[in-house]
Amino acid sequence: MKTEQKSKLRIIPLGGLEEIGMNITAFEYEDSIIVVDCGLSFPNDDMLGIDLVIPDVSYLKNNIEKVKGFFITHGHEDHIGAIPYVLREVNAPIYGTKLTIGIIENKLKEFPGLKGIKKKVVKYGQSINMGCFRVEFIRINHSISDAAALAIFTPVGTIIHTGDFKIDYTPVFGDPTDLARFAELGKKGVLAMLCESTNATKEGFTMSERTVGRTFDNLFAENVNHRILVATFASNVDRVQQIINTSYKYGRKVVVEGRSMVNIIGTAQELGYIKIPEGTLIDIEQLKNYPDEKTVLITTGSQGESMAALSRMAAGIHKKVSIKPGDAIILSSNPIPGNEKAVSKIINELSQRGANVIYQDTHVSGHACQEEIKLMYSLVHPKYSIPIHGEYRHRLAQAKLVSQLGIPKDHIFLMSSGDVLELDGKEHAQLNGHVHTGSILVDGLGVGDVGNIVLRDRQSLSQNGIIIVVLSLDSQSGQLLAGPDIVSRGFVYVRESEDLMEEAHTLVTHAVENCLDKKITDWNRLKTVIRDTLGDYLWKKMKRSPMVLPIIMEI
Amino acid sequence: MKTEQKSKLRIIPLGGLEEIGMNITAFEYEDSIIVVDCGLSFPNDDMLGIDLVIPDVSYLKNNIEKVKGFFITHGHEDHIGAIPYVLREVNAPIYGTKLTIGIIENKLKEFPGLKGIKKKVVKYGQSINMGCFRVEFIRINHSISDAAALAIFTPVGTIIHTGDFKIDYTPVFGDPTDLARFAELGKKGVLAMLCESTNATKEGFTMSERTVGRTFDNLFAENVNHRILVATFASNVDRVQQIINTSYKYGRKVVVEGRSMVNIIGTAQELGYIKIPEGTLIDIEQLKNYPDEKTVLITTGSQGESMAALSRMAAGIHKKVSIKPGDAIILSSNPIPGNEKAVSKIINELSQRGANVIYQDTHVSGHACQEEIKLMYSLVHPKYSIPIHGEYRHRLAQAKLVSQLGIPKDHIFLMSSGDVLELDGKEHAQLNGHVHTGSILVDGLGVGDVGNIVLRDRQSLSQNGIIIVVLSLDSQSGQLLAGPDIVSRGFVYVRESEDLMEEAHTLVTHAVENCLDKKITDWNRLKTVIRDTLGDYLWKKMKRSPMVLPIIMEI
Repeated sequence: MKTEQKSKLRIIPLGGLEEIGMNITAFEYEDSIIVVDCGLSFPNDDMLGIDLVIPDVSYLKNNIEKVKGFFITHGHEDHIGAIPYVLREVNAPIYGTKLTIGIIENKLKEFPGLKGIKKKVVKYGQSINMGCFRVEFIRINHSISDAAALAIFTPVGTIIHTGDFKIDYTPVFGDPTDLARFAELGKKGVLAMLCESTNATKEGFTMSERTVGRTFDNLFAENVNHRILVATFASNVDRVQQIINTSYKYGRKVVVEGRSMVNIIGTAQELGYIKIPEGTLIDIEQLKNYPDEKTVLITTGSQGESMAALSRMAAGIHKKVSIKPGDAIILSSNPIPGNEKAVSKIINELSQRGANVIYQDTHVSGHACQEEIKLMYSLVHPKYSIPIHGEYRHRLAQAKLVSQLGIPKDHIFLMSSGDVLELDGKEHAQLNGHVHTGSILVDGLGVGDVGNIVLRDRQSLSQNGIIIVVLSLDSQSGQLLAGPDIVSRGFVYVRESEDLMEEAHTLVTHAVENCLDKKITDWNRLKTVIRDTLGDYLWKKMKRSPMVLPIIMEI
Repeated sequence: MKTEQKSKLRIIPLGGLEEIGMNITAFEYEDSIIVVDCGLSFPNDDMLGIDLVIPDVSYLKNNIEKVKGFFITHGHEDHIGAIPYVLREVNAPIYGTKLTIGIIENKLKEFPGLKGIKKKVVKYGQSINMGCFRVEFIRINHSISDAAALAIFTPVGTIIHTGDFKIDYTPVFGDPTDLARFAELGKKGVLAMLCESTNATKEGFTMSERTVGRTFDNLFAENVNHRILVATFASNVDRVQQIINTSYKYGRKVVVEGRSMVNIIGTAQELGYIKIPEGTLIDIEQLKNYPDEKTVLITTGSQGESMAALSRMAAGIHKKVSIKPGDAIILSSNPIPGNEKAVSKIINELSQRGANVIYQDTHVSGHACQEEIKLMYSLVHPKYSIPIHGEYRHRLAQAKLVSQLGIPKDHIFLMSSGDVLELDGKEHAQLNGHVHTGSILVDGLGVGDVGNIVLRDRQSLSQNGIIIVVLSLDSQSGQLLAGPDIVSRGFVYVRESEDLMEEAHTLVTHAVENCLDKKITDWNRLKTVIRDTLGDYLWKKMKRSPMVLPIIMEI
C-alpha cells in the first residue's frame, strides 16, 4: 500500500507573480529543494526612496537543509538581481550557462562578503543531478545570449520551465531555440510547464533580433555624414554586436559609454559572446581624433534613467560628450512600462539640441508573442500549465490561449506568490496551502529596515511636507520655558506666507497656554492638542494636511 | 512713409509648449490683445503634492487694459482649466460654442467668487469683432462635441488656430470638420496657421469615432449574458452617446457613475448634445431591480485614477457596485502617458475579481495623425507654420511633415512659451523678444505658494525622510539644558534600528558637547556640526542622506 502514499512534488513561486521581476520558484520533493532564478524588482512609484526590492525567502531559510542549489535561466536583473542578498542567507551552489555565470560573477564583485558561493557553468544539453532532481539546460533565445529553459526531471514526472524566451530562427549569436528537444520531451510526456507570459496579450510572432541589424544598416546609410549614437540595454549583447557589425561595415570607430554597458560588454567579450574587429573599439578620450561621421557611441540610458550616460548628454552635463546638431541618435529599445515619460523627456531634450532622434521601429522584443507561446505548448503539450512572468492580465491571456489549445481549464494554474501546487505520482495536481512570501525593500545599505510605516511617512512628507512644533516645559512647575517654535520643511515658502505662519503660531501658542493653564501637562494630551489645532487650521485655510510633529523638551 | 512703420501682429504662446496642457496663446496688435484658450497642466512626477499647474500670465496682467477677451476652442481641461485662476486676475469676456460655455459655467460654479465673468455663446460661422481683430469659429471634430478652430482676421492677414482636431467624415454628433471653409480661407490667403501636433509622429489617419460604436455593438453581442461596464473619459460625450445607443439597442438600462461623468453628461443632456431614450437612464440605487445582463454602467476611472469610481470598484471599496465574475469591463480609452502603470494595475485587479477586461482596440484618438495634418495644410496652405499642442518631438514631427509639403524651413516656427513672433503687413515674420512666462503650482487652496525650494524639500523628504535634532541651551551660560533629542520620520523603522539610532545619538551628543566645551554657541556653527556629524555617519553606515534639521531653543 506504500505506493498509495507516495510523496508529492511541490512547486512554489516565491515571488514574481504579484510584481513584475523578482522571479524565483522553488521545486520541492521530500528532502530536496531546488530554486529556479533569483531576481529583483524595481520599486513601484509608491515605494519612495527605495532602490530595489528582493523576495522574502523565509521559506528557504526555514528549510535551509533541503536547499540543494539555484538554477539560473539567464543573466537579467529580474532573474539574478537578488542573488547577492538571498545567497547571504541561503548559501547553495549556483548553476547557469557560461555568460549567465560570468554576469553573476561580475555582479558579486561588488559584494566582497560573498566569496564563498560556488558557481558552476553548465552547457546546453547537460544535466545536473541534485537531490531527487535532474535538471537539464535547453537552448532558448532571448534578448540576452546564453538563455536557457530548464527540463526538471522529478520522481513524479518532467517539468519544463521556459525562463524568458522568444523563438528566433535566425539569432545573431549561436543557434535557434532547441525546438527538437522540446518536441522530444513533449513526446515522452511532460507533466507541467511553467511558461513566460510577458507578451501573451500580443498577437503574432516576435521578429528576429536580426531584423534590427537591417534597420541599423539603413539608418547608418542615411546618416553617413553624421555622428551616430545608439542607446540600448546594456545586457542586450546581440544588439551591441549588430551595432558593432554595422559600424565596422561603415568604417566607423566605436566607443562604449556607461558603466553597466562597459561591464557587460567586457564580460561578453572575455567569454567570447561578442566579436569586435580589432581596432574598432576606441576609448572615449580618443573620440576627438576622429571626424564625427567616422564614429559611433553605444550608450546606456535608453529608458531615460536620470543618471545614465544618455540623460547626462541630453541635459548637457556629460563630461565627455556634447550633443551636436545633426547627431543621429537611435533609441534601440521600447520604454518599459512606467518609463514612458522619462523617455519622452530625453527625446525632447535631445531634439532641442538639434539631434535627429530615431525611436520608432528600432527594437524587437525578447519575449514570445501569442504564436510562439502556442508553438511551445504544441511541442511540449504538458498536462498542466502554469503561466509565469507577467502581470495577472498577461498570465490570464496565456491561460486563455492554452485553453484554446485544448488544455482543460482546471489544468491551468494562475498561481499567486507563495501558493503551493502539489503534483503526485498519479499525475494529480492541486493547489494546497500557502507559504509566507513578500517583498523586502532595499534602501542604500539597509535591507528590510524600511517598512510600511516609514513608506507612509515618506508619502505624507512628499505630499505636504512637515511642520515641527517644539516647546520646552519646566519639569517641576509645568511652565512653558520656551516656544512653541514652528519650523516647516516642504510645506510653503515661508517668506511668502508670513501671515499664515504667524497666525498658526498664535493659534498654537494659545492652545498650549490654555492647556497649561488647565494644568494639562500630559505630553500626549498636549501633542494631540497641537496636532489638532494646527491640522484643523491648515486644512480650513489651505486644504492641506502637512505632517504635524510636536516635540516637547522637559528641563 | 508711414506705411513703412506699420504695426506688427505679435503671436505669443504663454504656455503649453514646454509642458503638455496649459494651452494659452496671446495675439496682440497695437492696443488689442485676444487670448486663445486658457488651460491647465497636471503635475509632473517631480511636482510632489501639487494638484494642478496653471500658466503665469504676468504678461496679460501687465497689459490688462489691452486684453479684450478669451476665445476657447473646446471644453477640455488643458484648454479651459485655468480659467477660474486666470480670470480672477485678468477679467475679460469668454467666447465659445454652446457646449464649451456650458462646461465652463459648470466649472465656475465651484468658484463662487467669480460671478462677474461675461460668457458668450458663439455659433460656427459666426464672427466676433474685438479690438483690431475679428474671430470666426469654424466647425472641427475632436473627442468632445462643439470643438472649434478659429480664423483670426488681423490687420496684417488671416491667422488660423486649429485647436485640437481630427477629421471625422462620419462624426457621431453634428457635422464633419468644415473642410470647405478651410479651403475657402486658404484660397483667399492665410498668413499663418497654428496647428496641433499631438499625433504628428503617427502615420495615417485617425479612425472615425463611429468605429468605436461598431466595436461596442460587437462586444455587447458577445456579452449578452453578462453585466457590462464601460469606463471612458467623462468629457467624451460622443463616446457616451454610442454606449447609450448600443445599450438601448440591447434593451439594457444605463447607470452613469463618477462625479465628473454625471456633471458633464448632465450638461450635455441639458444643452441637447446627447440624446438618451426615455427610461434608459436609471439611478444607481435602482440597479438591484434589474438582472445583471440588462444593465450597463458607464463610469470614470479609465486612466486608473486612484479616487475614481472604477478604481474603487477594482479595489472592492466602491459603496454601491461590486465587481462579479463574468462582468465585461470595457476600458474605452488609451492610457495617457504617465498613467500606463496605474491602468495596468486596475486591469489586473479587475481580472483577479473574475471580470473579463477588454482594453485593446476599444478607443480612437481625438487628434489628427499625419495624413490629417497634411490635409489641413494642403487646404489652408498658410505662408507660415507654427506647430502647437505637443511635446517638442511632436511639434518637430509636424515641422518635418510641413517641410515635405513645400513650406520653406524658415517659415516654420518651433516656438517656446514666451517667444514673440512678429508678423508685419509685408508678410515678413520673425521671432523677436521674449516675455515672462512660467508655471504656477496649485496645492490645495494655495496658488503659487509652493516653489522650487519647497519642492526640493519634498523630494528630499520623500527619498530618505527627516531627522530632527532638538536641544535647549541656557541663554546666559550657553550650557546644554536638555537634549540633544533625535526624532525621525520616514527614515527607518526605529524599533528595528535601535542600535543605529543610539549610536547616532551618542555621536551627536559628543559633537554638541565638544562645541560647547570650546565655547562655540553660535547657532549656525552648532547646526552645521550637527548636520555634518549625522550626515557623514548615516551615509557611511547606510548610504542614505535624510534631511537633518537641527532646532535649538534658548531658555
